[in-house]
Amino acid sequence: MQTRYDVIVVGAGHAGCEAAHAAARLGCRTLLLTIDLDKLAHMSCNPSIGGPAKGHLVREIDAMGGLMGRITDRSAIQIRLLNESKGPAVQSLRAQCDKRLYARLMKETLERVPNLDLRQAMVERIAPPNADTQCFTVTTHTGWRYLAPAVILTTGTFLRGRAITGEAVWGAGRAGEAPAMALSEDLAALGFPLVRLKTGTPPRLAAATIDFSLTELQPGSDKPLAFGHYYAELGETIPPPEYHGPPAPVYPHPQLNGWRPQLPCYQVHTTPEFHAIIRQNLHRAPLFSGIIEGVGPRYCPSIEDKIVRFADKERHSLFLEPEGWTTAEVYVQGCNTSLPEDVQWAMLRSIPALRNVELMRIGYAIEYDAVATGEITADMQTRRLRGLFFAGQINGTTGYEEAAAQGLMAGINAAHYVQGKPPVILGRAEAYIGVLIDDLTTKEIREPYRMFTSRAEYRLLLRGDNADLRLTPLAYRLGLVDGDRAAVVEQRRRQAEQALQQMHERCIFPSAAINNALEAQGVKPLNQPATVAEVLARPDVSYRQLRTAIPDLPDLSPSVAEQVEIGCKYRGYIARQEREVARMQKMEHRRIPPDFDYTTLPGLRNEARQVLMRFRPATLGQAGRLAGINPADVAIILFALERRQVHTDTEATYNQ
Amino acid sequence: MQTRYDVIVVGAGHAGCEAAHAAARLGCRTLLLTIDLDKLAHMSCNPSIGGPAKGHLVREIDAMGGLMGRITDRSAIQIRLLNESKGPAVQSLRAQCDKRLYARLMKETLERVPNLDLRQAMVERIAPPNADTQCFTVTTHTGWRYLAPAVILTTGTFLRGRAITGEAVWGAGRAGEAPAMALSEDLAALGFPLVRLKTGTPPRLAAATIDFSLTELQPGSDKPLAFGHYYAELGETIPPPEYHGPPAPVYPHPQLNGWRPQLPCYQVHTTPEFHAIIRQNLHRAPLFSGIIEGVGPRYCPSIEDKIVRFADKERHSLFLEPEGWTTAEVYVQGCNTSLPEDVQWAMLRSIPALRNVELMRIGYAIEYDAVATGEITADMQTRRLRGLFFAGQINGTTGYEEAAAQGLMAGINAAHYVQGKPPVILGRAEAYIGVLIDDLTTKEIREPYRMFTSRAEYRLLLRGDNADLRLTPLAYRLGLVDGDRAAVVEQRRRQAEQALQQMHERCIFPSAAINNALEAQGVKPLNQPATVAEVLARPDVSYRQLRTAIPDLPDLSPSVAEQVEIGCKYRGYIARQEREVARMQKMEHRRIPPDFDYTTLPGLRNEARQVLMRFRPATLGQAGRLAGINPADVAIILFALERRQVHTDTEATYNQ
Ligand SMILES: Cc1cc2nc3c(=O)[nH]c(=O)nc-3n(C[C@H](O)[C@H](O)[C@H](O)COP(=O)(O)OP(=O)(O)OC[C@H]3O[C@@H](n4cnc5c(N)ncnc54)[C@H](O)[C@@H]3O)c2cc1C
Ligand SMILES: Cc1cc2nc3c(=O)[nH]c(=O)nc-3n(C[C@H](O)[C@H](O)[C@H](O)COP(=O)(O)OP(=O)(O)OC[C@H]3O[C@@H](n4cnc5c(N)ncnc54)[C@H](O)[C@@H]3O)c2cc1C
Repeated sequence: MQTRYDVIVVGAGHAGCEAAHAAARLGCRTLLLTIDLDKLAHMSCNPSIGGPAKGHLVREIDAMGGLMGRITDRSAIQIRLLNESKGPAVQSLRAQCDKRLYARLMKETLERVPNLDLRQAMVERIAPPNADTQCFTVTTHTGWRYLAPAVILTTGTFLRGRAITGEAVWGAGRAGEAPAMALSEDLAALGFPLVRLKTGTPPRLAAATIDFSLTELQPGSDKPLAFGHYYAELGETIPPPEYHGPPAPVYPHPQLNGWRPQLPCYQVHTTPEFHAIIRQNLHRAPLFSGIIEGVGPRYCPSIEDKIVRFADKERHSLFLEPEGWTTAEVYVQGCNTSLPEDVQWAMLRSIPALRNVELMRIGYAIEYDAVATGEITADMQTRRLRGLFFAGQINGTTGYEEAAAQGLMAGINAAHYVQGKPPVILGRAEAYIGVLIDDLTTKEIREPYRMFTSRAEYRLLLRGDNADLRLTPLAYRLGLVDGDRAAVVEQRRRQAEQALQQMHERCIFPSAAINNALEAQGVKPLNQPATVAEVLARPDVSYRQLRTAIPDLPDLSPSVAEQVEIGCKYRGYIARQEREVARMQKMEHRRIPPDFDYTTLPGLRNEARQVLMRFRPATLGQAGRLAGINPADVAIILFALERRQVHTDTEATYNQ
Repeated sequence: MQTRYDVIVVGAGHAGCEAAHAAARLGCRTLLLTIDLDKLAHMSCNPSIGGPAKGHLVREIDAMGGLMGRITDRSAIQIRLLNESKGPAVQSLRAQCDKRLYARLMKETLERVPNLDLRQAMVERIAPPNADTQCFTVTTHTGWRYLAPAVILTTGTFLRGRAITGEAVWGAGRAGEAPAMALSEDLAALGFPLVRLKTGTPPRLAAATIDFSLTELQPGSDKPLAFGHYYAELGETIPPPEYHGPPAPVYPHPQLNGWRPQLPCYQVHTTPEFHAIIRQNLHRAPLFSGIIEGVGPRYCPSIEDKIVRFADKERHSLFLEPEGWTTAEVYVQGCNTSLPEDVQWAMLRSIPALRNVELMRIGYAIEYDAVATGEITADMQTRRLRGLFFAGQINGTTGYEEAAAQGLMAGINAAHYVQGKPPVILGRAEAYIGVLIDDLTTKEIREPYRMFTSRAEYRLLLRGDNADLRLTPLAYRLGLVDGDRAAVVEQRRRQAEQALQQMHERCIFPSAAINNALEAQGVKPLNQPATVAEVLARPDVSYRQLRTAIPDLPDLSPSVAEQVEIGCKYRGYIARQEREVARMQKMEHRRIPPDFDYTTLPGLRNEARQVLMRFRPATLGQAGRLAGINPADVAIILFALERRQVHTDTEATYNQ
């Protein structure tokens, strides 16, 4: 029987699933251990995937050959493009999934991955590699031992998990599930500093008790949308949803006849009474009474926190999101809370649409151990024990997409570690995934970390529409996607580049006929000759309009036309960001050896020295981004690196 | 907000779901509380429903308006008629379900039941009714309190649950789920004597690692079969399966083109090596080493138990059953075990088809608290606290069907209790459900109780084919099924009776033409005139054959023809059982008052007195079936009852 693996992944949440898939795909004999196989890829909170910045992460995961995007496409009961009217950098896909279907599809997908074994077990101990086997020993609750040179921990909210509603506190990894106690103690014993974080979830409602006539509709897109790339290019179609038949009959206005059957979401608002009920009960809120010790995400506050922090805001939006196609259970987005149960009932019932609502599950907070910042390097590996990787919530992040992105990179890097290949690290100018992991390894994470578009300085380059152009060539080189996909991407890139070139060369002369044709398309007429690129640079002019007016323009596929439009409209901004990236790259490429001695660096401020020794940045670029490091500090390091370089070169010469 | 209900059901396993549905259907405001709503109706063990005697229970549940049968029909990936060649009494349906689909459909069905609220919560305390509210108080883990005059406990294997594999023991209601500790203590504090029982489950295998070419096929039925009644009669069809698309590609020989797409099961056998491995490791088996204290079911032994008890049996059959249509996870029927993990691996890998098998979950035993026998009466109510009902595994049974049957009756009786209506008790001659509950209330349950056809003395009357004729009229009177269904049943009964009558009257004369026609149908020719009934009484002669030979016989629907055939073939046996029932009924109808004083009964043996006081039988029939009670004891009670009757009559006369 197989007890020795190349890579062992602990935990089959969103991080663990991607990690196991990537490692197996890269040829490693991989084992995925998890407490309850029936909860594999369970969405603990929202049934939704994507949204601002998170949607970018999902497209990047897909471009890298990961699973989240395509499984979302097969299970989404609604999909929308957020910020459609804003620039392409902040446009983002968001899907509402059928929660059970998503988890089922993920499990069944993993069951079919070669090289991968799924197994139910609670991991209790991880012993560092012994000299003999060079392997970690992972011990389960039955005392069974597995060996592997690389282990990825993705334990989510389970480490010493504690659930809290009002005055009630009980041990739980999630409501109804047991926490992982022993493993947490074991990590502490191995010397990992642990911090206490918290997150929360709203109540779930019985749809039959909602008065939907008092809600506002939030429909799904009437145009086809998908997280996965290249369906069309590969001769596929967007996968049809794998739910069937009519939706649960309680939901009004299902969109049954569009490109895909969808369910809307339903918006309501908090009321003055709602706010008053919370204010009257603040002394009973675990968040304020001292019961909750862990630090929660400031930007994703509980409803009680919002009421306190934005005291003058008269109302907040809440979104009633069906948890699936056929279930009548409804998630209340925007209302996560750990207030006592009676308060949850009373506040929700103050909303007209929810006058008679019945709660199916109450909201609760969960407090858990995460590993303190500074423990992992940019390849997701711990400094303390090479071969041990952390990914997901355990690193102090929150969100399925953030977890999946880390899982993917941890899976790749664990495989490379085992195979003696160099680490794979995405830069901040390459991907949101790069921004995420760079932040995790250079910033002090004091509260659960979530991705935002504002965290990416080069966000005009890191768009959802070009995730494949940015990442699939790498994924292909790594062996994560096959040649067909890579070829399709290269073709799209070539076509877009050629087309863009053409648009810069092709001139339009403002004849009356042309101007009439333009006007007929709603495009302002020209008063002097202009290149197509110049016309496309105007806001609100699309390539489709131009080509209708001027039929001998080339026939571009929508995805190529999109690239051309963005290339024309944002030319200046994109060029500026590319210059910045080039400048940054120089610093970025300047590596700092892992054993670099900061203690003796003359002129370095004490504070800077401490930060540098804690995070041990891999490059000068990383060093510069550390909180507390200023350009003068960077200059000192650069100087020392150059001196050292001379020194090493000299030594190398001697040794020859 | 609603905190007061008519009926509260604790636990949404197979018992709890039927209980909540029945109570709500009977008009009670009903609350179903369970630890994890995502595990509602989860099949802890086999993905299968039905089988000998259990299949009868399911048809009875369906005839009574319960849910299990119809949900099985919608989720079965295989359905078969067992003992097809044997008599109709032991023929039984057995379905293999898609485990996740079954649970999902049950949850969604319950979500749509009027009067019923589903809520996730762990119940920790139950306080007896106080004088003020006349209601029990049920307290959850958050301290939230619900009130109801009737409470049904269906906690399954969760009360102080302990999972065991080899030397490893951990607290669990099921693998991966937390046990219910507080409630168990609370029940003990309320005075309920608890006993420790155990059950077990086999390992689950990764289908991709099975060599199916070395297994034998066990296909699903090629004729339409269903647990639900009257689909055709109500103008419906057997519901199509709610799984879609192709099955998981690992399974060979899927039956895709029949009346319904099905998957076969795959049979293998244990090997001498398998037996040797177990024997060598018996000292490490928790069952024998003393780790397991609870008593397990003798008739459903673990594999280690089988090897020990049937030492000269050279091999045992094991059945590899897919856990769903699209999952590659496989259940190993016949191999439940709590042997240490290494032994489980080694023994399975000794089977040629499983040489390289990977285990996805290991087998384990679960030990839990059940309530000792003698605590509930025939209406599922506890003697100790009227209004408190127990159903399912908590009463010492095992099996989904046994649990569902009890849940159904507890739901009905809780509703009747609240509504001041008389209890509903099915007799041993009416239903397997009656046999089950009668056994539970008259027999000392020393090991988990499971239904067998041999437990029913009138099993020729309690057939799967006539469950509707036996029970639907009652269900209609109770309000559990609607008039359409009741009318269909009455029509079928009438048609069957009329047809049977006709067959007894209609004579066949052995002309050459008729005999030729009969022979052409494979029916032995007649040498003297005979009624159709007489010919049908011969084994192997079907009505369809006769009617093909003699076309002017009436055209009977298959279901009426079946009744006619059984009525002819088993006439003598059925008549004899009916006479026995009539004799028994006299005793059965002789009620013993609940306050009947056994202490002063002259002539009663001490042992008999103790048994009678412990079980307090409701009728003389029940008293006679108690273990340790002989006919002489019954005569003594009968005598006392008659004296008392005179006495009461006299008193009544005085009081007029
Ligand atoms: C109550 C709650 C509310 C949340 N609210 C939000 C929110 O509002 N917004 C948001 O973005 N995110 C929220 N999240 C977080 C989101 O669910 C996580 O960020 C995401 O699921 C993390 O993925 P992960 O893979 O790191 O861990 P998880 O999805 O938690 O998966 C961890 C897995 O590891 C397994 N595991 C743990 N310990 C062991 C062990 N010792 N041995 C074997 N297996 C083990 C578990 O069984 C589980 O399958 C919430 C989470 C919870 C629990
Ligand atoms: C490991 C294992 C192996 C088994 N093997 C077999 C077998 O081989 N053959 C066989 O016939 N049967 C077997 N069974 C038994 C079968 O699963 C049960 O008989 C059947 O499920 C009992 O149904 P139930 O409704 O009584 O309880 P369950 O199906 O166990 O459901 C109980 C429900 O109550 C809930 N609950 C418990 N306590 C509380 C509380 N305090 N508050 C709120 N909710 C609570 C639980 O969450 C659960 O949903 C096995 C069970 C297990 C666990």
